[in-house]
Amino acid sequence: MDRIKVIEVKEDVLANNDRAAQALRERLHDQGTMLINLMSSPGSGKTTLLSATLDALSDELAIGVMEADVDSDVDAYTVQSHGARAVQLHTGGMCHLDAAMTEQGLRELGTSGLDLVFLENVGNLICPAEFDTGAARKVMILSAPEGHDKPLKYPLMFEVSDLVIVSKMDVAQYFDFSLEELEKNVRLRNPHATILPVSAKTGEGMDAWYEWLRREVRQWRA
Amino acid sequence: MDRIKVIEVKEDVLANNDRAAQALRERLHDQGTMLINLMSSPGSGKTTLLSATLDALSDELAIGVMEADVDSDVDAYTVQSHGARAVQLHTGGMCHLDAAMTEQGLRELGTSGLDLVFLENVGNLICPAEFDTGAARKVMILSAPEGHDKPLKYPLMFEVSDLVIVSKMDVAQYFDFSLEELEKNVRLRNPHATILPVSAKTGEGMDAWYEWLRREVRQWRA
Repeated sequence: MDRIKVIEVKEDVLANNDRAAQALRERLHDQGTMLINLMSSPGSGKTTLLSATLDALSDELAIGVMEADVDSDVDAYTVQSHGARAVQLHTGGMCHLDAAMTEQGLRELGTSGLDLVFLENVGNLICPAEFDTGAARKVMILSAPEGHDKPLKYPLMFEVSDLVIVSKMDVAQYFDFSLEELEKNVRLRNPHATILPVSAKTGEGMDAWYEWLRREVRQWRA
Repeated sequence: MDRIKVIEVKEDVLANNDRAAQALRERLHDQGTMLINLMSSPGSGKTTLLSATLDALSDELAIGVMEADVDSDVDAYTVQSHGARAVQLHTGGMCHLDAAMTEQGLRELGTSGLDLVFLENVGNLICPAEFDTGAARKVMILSAPEGHDKPLKYPLMFEVSDLVIVSKMDVAQYFDFSLEELEKNVRLRNPHATILPVSAKTGEGMDAWYEWLRREVRQWRA
């Protein structure tokens, strides 16, 4: 087979917002609020997972949600109906949130008294991985229908994530999807990430996700 | 229910590359090569659709493929094995291609004698919609598992597309997916786009896609 030509067309448009992110993270740590940056492709089931999580944990943790989208506010209404304090962030066409945008959102949300805030980032496997938002933990969701090859094609997202949730496991059988292959591909990029297969629909694996959240909140506040 | 706060965090980072794109489009028109900008989320089945298309049409059309990814070159090898002249474009973390990057790719591919070139854009529903690459037609793929609400959340992608291919229709029944709802949501943003439900796996709808391609190539060269 002919060797494929690979052409680098790199351009550098990434602003350095690391200092702002670090200051925000320290401030949230001091007040005992854990911010989770939740990232995924469009349609991976972020909002469905969050809704189930709110139903399960709202009695024990005070939870806020910032929904980021280029447009619409349907997701914020959904999570609000599950009992979360919620705001909608519009990015105006931007494909990610940076630390300044996150801070602006947190100010509007009001973090006082919150144990846990989810930032539901823009549906995208590229840009959100590149910007530190000031979150304590990065969690990504890969839905089984997207395929187990995704760590090869979106390596940075898998590199930066503390937890990889594999969603829609109830339908994995209808796709050419292998959890074992996925785990191998994740490990190529990230030896440490926890990998949790779940189905928000059947409840499979959800208890492990709730346990992960409880433990991380405890450790963050310790 | 409380009214959700909506905060605009718009930033303008989009360069104007419209002139370069228009010049490229005219040059391709003069030489009788139709460039198609193929856009979608990660894991929507772009490469599978392209492979089937190459198998079906390579005898009647000379087809080239540019695979754009932030990393990896697995897709370029796949389409090459289906008989296409292929190059891999690495965007170095960028979430889209602009006209200059596309032109660079075309130069490396070599368009002489090609009837049709597919640019398989980076898997992303946001950035690629914002940049004119110089393509004659914009085609987007939405896979049924992603959900029929996506035109509400990624409106620009649906606004700019000439054709919306709905892929993985063979598994649509396992998801909360309604083709009728999708069509309604697309129409809110785009009254003209053709909508084609397909399954590259079962072959459902693929003939309509091939007919669309044949007709558009004929019209482009007329």
